[in-house]
Amino acid sequence: MSSRVLSVKSSLIEPDGGSLINLVVPDSERLSREREASELPHVKLTQIDLEWVHVISEGWASPLKGFMREDEYLQSLHFNSMRLKDGSVVNMSLPIVLVIDDEQKAKIGGSSDVGLIGPSGDPVGVLKGIQIYKHNKEERIARTWGTTAPGLPYVEEVINPAGNWLIGGDLEVFKPIKYNDGLDHYRLSPQQLRKEFDKRQADAVFAFQLRNPVHNGHALLMNDTRGRLLEMGYKNPILLLHPLGGYTKADDVPLDVRMEQHSKVLEDGVLDPETTVVAIFPSPMHYAGPTEVQWHAKARINAGANFYIVGRDPAGMSHPTEKRDLYDPDHGKLVLSMAPGLEKLNILPFRVAAYDQKEKKMAFFDPSRPQDFLFISGTKMRTYARNGDNPPDGFMCPGGWRVLVQYYESLQAEETSKPPTVVSV
Amino acid sequence: MSSRVLSVKSSLIEPDGGSLINLVVPDSERLSREREASELPHVKLTQIDLEWVHVISEGWASPLKGFMREDEYLQSLHFNSMRLKDGSVVNMSLPIVLVIDDEQKAKIGGSSDVGLIGPSGDPVGVLKGIQIYKHNKEERIARTWGTTAPGLPYVEEVINPAGNWLIGGDLEVFKPIKYNDGLDHYRLSPQQLRKEFDKRQADAVFAFQLRNPVHNGHALLMNDTRGRLLEMGYKNPILLLHPLGGYTKADDVPLDVRMEQHSKVLEDGVLDPETTVVAIFPSPMHYAGPTEVQWHAKARINAGANFYIVGRDPAGMSHPTEKRDLYDPDHGKLVLSMAPGLEKLNILPFRVAAYDQKEKKMAFFDPSRPQDFLFISGTKMRTYARNGDNPPDGFMCPGGWRVLVQYYESLQAEETSKPPTVVSV
Repeated sequence: MSSRVLSVKSSLIEPDGGSLINLVVPDSERLSREREASELPHVKLTQIDLEWVHVISEGWASPLKGFMREDEYLQSLHFNSMRLKDGSVVNMSLPIVLVIDDEQKAKIGGSSDVGLIGPSGDPVGVLKGIQIYKHNKEERIARTWGTTAPGLPYVEEVINPAGNWLIGGDLEVFKPIKYNDGLDHYRLSPQQLRKEFDKRQADAVFAFQLRNPVHNGHALLMNDTRGRLLEMGYKNPILLLHPLGGYTKADDVPLDVRMEQHSKVLEDGVLDPETTVVAIFPSPMHYAGPTEVQWHAKARINAGANFYIVGRDPAGMSHPTEKRDLYDPDHGKLVLSMAPGLEKLNILPFRVAAYDQKEKKMAFFDPSRPQDFLFISGTKMRTYARNGDNPPDGFMCPGGWRVLVQYYESLQAEETSKPPTVVSV
Repeated sequence: MSSRVLSVKSSLIEPDGGSLINLVVPDSERLSREREASELPHVKLTQIDLEWVHVISEGWASPLKGFMREDEYLQSLHFNSMRLKDGSVVNMSLPIVLVIDDEQKAKIGGSSDVGLIGPSGDPVGVLKGIQIYKHNKEERIARTWGTTAPGLPYVEEVINPAGNWLIGGDLEVFKPIKYNDGLDHYRLSPQQLRKEFDKRQADAVFAFQLRNPVHNGHALLMNDTRGRLLEMGYKNPILLLHPLGGYTKADDVPLDVRMEQHSKVLEDGVLDPETTVVAIFPSPMHYAGPTEVQWHAKARINAGANFYIVGRDPAGMSHPTEKRDLYDPDHGKLVLSMAPGLEKLNILPFRVAAYDQKEKKMAFFDPSRPQDFLFISGTKMRTYARNGDNPPDGFMCPGGWRVLVQYYESLQAEETSKPPTVVSV
């Protein structure tokens, strides 16, 4: 059998579809599969395609067994969800698709399977029982982002340059996807995470999705959440601190810097290593607000999380051409709370934390004395770090802050070492 | 109680949410309600707003009880469906919303209810327990149409000129909406239709949505469908021939002409009056393809139809700025077959009919002799009628064809009687 389904014994929340998808072929079969695949027409993957192969193969998108065929794509696009054969519904808000161009389509011809070749030329896997269908970029973009304005990072960098065809099929991967960037030990699969939660005897798992450095406001929130779960009667709630590790836009802090910053936060004792699992979520980032936050939540169900912390404007950004937020900051939370297939997940709305200038620490915003609170946005934080200024005491643990300052210093060093560029008019 | 729920005893398919919404106040209460409403701040309705009031008040959108509040709007926009309190899901693919501008919002102030005034100044009803929220036009358009290209009829004529706020709430209507255009007797409510089907002892009702004249290919399809339903064991399948009666784009054939054409088709015996109910579906048209076809189908469930005939590219049109269909012609059928909340509806795909030049009649396309078949598009049909040319014998019943020819003659007479216009550069 090509796609194996592993059921993990656990008291954790059930994965979507009832069992966790794992599409990595057993070691014993790898060579023969690679040999078979070498005879097939092939599709060369981009780095971001490979990130999606990673995501699908480990079961983050369970019960999805490969790149979407047209019926899955249409359900994702129109309903943000998919109906399974037994009539049950799972959430599936982002189209997880592989794009090919006319030339690749012609090469594939009538073959029912294709081999997948990684960006560096190595065989990665195979896509079986393929279906090739039109890639209507405009419609995909409009329905996923709610805008077609130019300047959406994933659209500009991934969708616009890509071809006019989508190719769906059942995925098989020859071996687990690795990046050899010194961070692979953080890349725990949903199965590995579930094992870890079981080992720690977690009776609740609360996930925190992020793509920014952790400041003390985040920490306050996470520690407070654990307190609330204990009050609710859980004996051992475990935090999944789960930075996104796939594609992010150029001005986001890079993954390696973030991971170093996160580990300082645990070293400095701001978060308790006993009750925290730090791991990388391998998905690329869409910046698609309410549509994407559903994906972020759904994938964490598959990793065993039954609580999900949702912030203001999750996966949001500024509108690329207008002076406003692209999404209503409340919509992410609202849409998540109503999303089909996510009924079993407990949504924990983010409480607003800000810098309390009186108490000199990050604290939950107290509307009775707004004048005492200073809101430090991501942009402001980056400006501090870039200028070598210190944020107010108690904003972030010193070890974590140092990591950021060093990153921005290195960026500036790079800038100044560049030859002067002629500005075109 | 303000919103009454009438349950109709019948063997027909259940309306969405279990009971048919009827928001018309009883005659005995009308005067007191009108008096109360006259004290409230009010919103002036456009003609199309009034069409939506009509739609909602008669229960076509059951279980929707008024213009959408934000939670309903977001579910419609993101999921094309709504979850009810009991956990069940109903389809709801088009946002059914009322728009107000800044000035109207200011006038309403903190009032919890508003009066609704018709386009001609008469009191129409009241919206209770209102919620005012942002009208993000770009996002609404992108997610509903899958494009934001300029030139979408409903967008240009209805959404773009409208205000920046949506107002939701529970609707109450003082009396049934009438148009006094000589066609009101065709405007049967879902409740009236259900009564009619019961009276005829229908054990299956198959709905045919259209906004074009009926040619013999349509008739072939409808008669063939009846035959198939009889073969399936139904004893008395009734056809609901259900032309859309609300807003349509300027170059569509107007409602009164279509109704006259349809009645000729029944007079000429092309369709059997014994087994056909002709009525007007009061909804405005969005031309939103796969998103809108769900609305067209869902509303007919509420009117008692358990079979729905779906054609190629339903509710589709040409892309407003590119040389292609706006939607993939197969997507309407596919999306409809997978749409949440429509599982109980039987979808009957349209078989392709064309003019068989050998048999000199409309017939189902026979792929073994494609050269014999002539496809006569709506555009081609209109061109024939406009030029006073006759289509091939057997394309449409003569009585029906005459109605169209007369309509286009009257248009041309109007054109030529106009004073010459100066073309501005």
